[in-house]
Amino acid sequence: METTRAGRPRLTERRRPGTTAREEILDAAGELFTTRGYASTSTRAIAEAVGIRQASLYHYFKTKDELLSALLHQTVTPTLTFLSALQRADPEPAAAQCLHALAAFDGAQLLTSRWNLGALYLLPELREARLATFWTERERLRLAYLDLSRSILTTTGVADDAADLPFRLVESLVNMWSQPPQPDHATLAGHVADACLRVLGVIDGALPALRTSTHHYLAHFGPARVGHL
Amino acid sequence: METTRAGRPRLTERRRPGTTAREEILDAAGELFTTRGYASTSTRAIAEAVGIRQASLYHYFKTKDELLSALLHQTVTPTLTFLSALQRADPEPAAAQCLHALAAFDGAQLLTSRWNLGALYLLPELREARLATFWTERERLRLAYLDLSRSILTTTGVADDAADLPFRLVESLVNMWSQPPQPDHATLAGHVADACLRVLGVIDGALPALRTSTHHYLAHFGPARVGHL
Repeated sequence: METTRAGRPRLTERRRPGTTAREEILDAAGELFTTRGYASTSTRAIAEAVGIRQASLYHYFKTKDELLSALLHQTVTPTLTFLSALQRADPEPAAAQCLHALAAFDGAQLLTSRWNLGALYLLPELREARLATFWTERERLRLAYLDLSRSILTTTGVADDAADLPFRLVESLVNMWSQPPQPDHATLAGHVADACLRVLGVIDGALPALRTSTHHYLAHFGPARVGHL
Repeated sequence: METTRAGRPRLTERRRPGTTAREEILDAAGELFTTRGYASTSTRAIAEAVGIRQASLYHYFKTKDELLSALLHQTVTPTLTFLSALQRADPEPAAAQCLHALAAFDGAQLLTSRWNLGALYLLPELREARLATFWTERERLRLAYLDLSRSILTTTGVADDAADLPFRLVESLVNMWSQPPQPDHATLAGHVADACLRVLGVIDGALPALRTSTHHYLAHFGPARVGHL
């Protein structure tokens, strides 16, 4: 890694994806936190990786925790936005349609993120109260999965203990990211969406129609990068 | 936490579970790595948490990496031993029986560990070559799941992309450990075993017989703490 003195002026050309300095900083923090570790990464190292002064970084983020919090929100916010769009769709999707599309979208988000941000969920530092807003949003997402799952379980008769598994199954994609890259992440997210329905006891015959509706919802409400699922 | 000077002699009474100093050291390391973080924990802090001198700790483990490696092996070795016993059983279990019992055992191991050691899998430090023997064993376990899954997929006709999901589903229990404790982890592991078969397209009608065979295998080859599944 190239090092710069703290007083060095901003390099003219940008080194990282992102149209704003804030996005570049987040990208650098994402890289360093997930490859070197959170505790081992200083805000100075992040500023150096972007090519800005540490003082400039503080203009955007007061602490390392603030950076972590912003990164973690990136893993949840797009999915919550997609879910809201789904729930406002006309006609309203059935629970099975909603869960299938949600899992496909959420899974693709986790798999296609530039850094494996989901791997940060298990950091001991994450239990700190300062990250409470992130945990609240993530819990909101988990409860949305749970509501949809429970509604499906009443139709299949599978035990309620399975209700949390779709959320966990999607979350487990974090561990698949960290392996050598899969040839086709979008396909994988689609299979995980199928698996979410299967763990709730939905039979194979119902899946082709769900894949069709998910394709439709992703095309309408999903960002371009997961729209080809 | 009680602190001691490095030169303080070993306390007479043991503070931690384990019949040997080695086990007590591993227990303390498990606690500190999973609650404070790996990078933030020194071998001195571990020695202090056990109530021994740092020099005594080095008698058992030369480096912090060695401690991490030993802890990680604890998460895989019992499951590999159980799997070997399963595969030598007479009559030989069918792939579905084998996978169901394996998932129930492995899941219970992950959920009932005193510290959430599985959460350490995603540490950036784990990519270090020094932990290669751990990765080899974990990969061996993953491939065993994969073989069983593929064998089951040939009978259900579900796409091969689902083959890695049972391993990931069990692994996701690491994220359920880190939530407030579940009332009954053994039941949960059993449901995850069912879910592993469901994601491969096995229908509900086949599950009661699999639960019976898993109950039998755990009683015969499982340690006492998961035998009540």
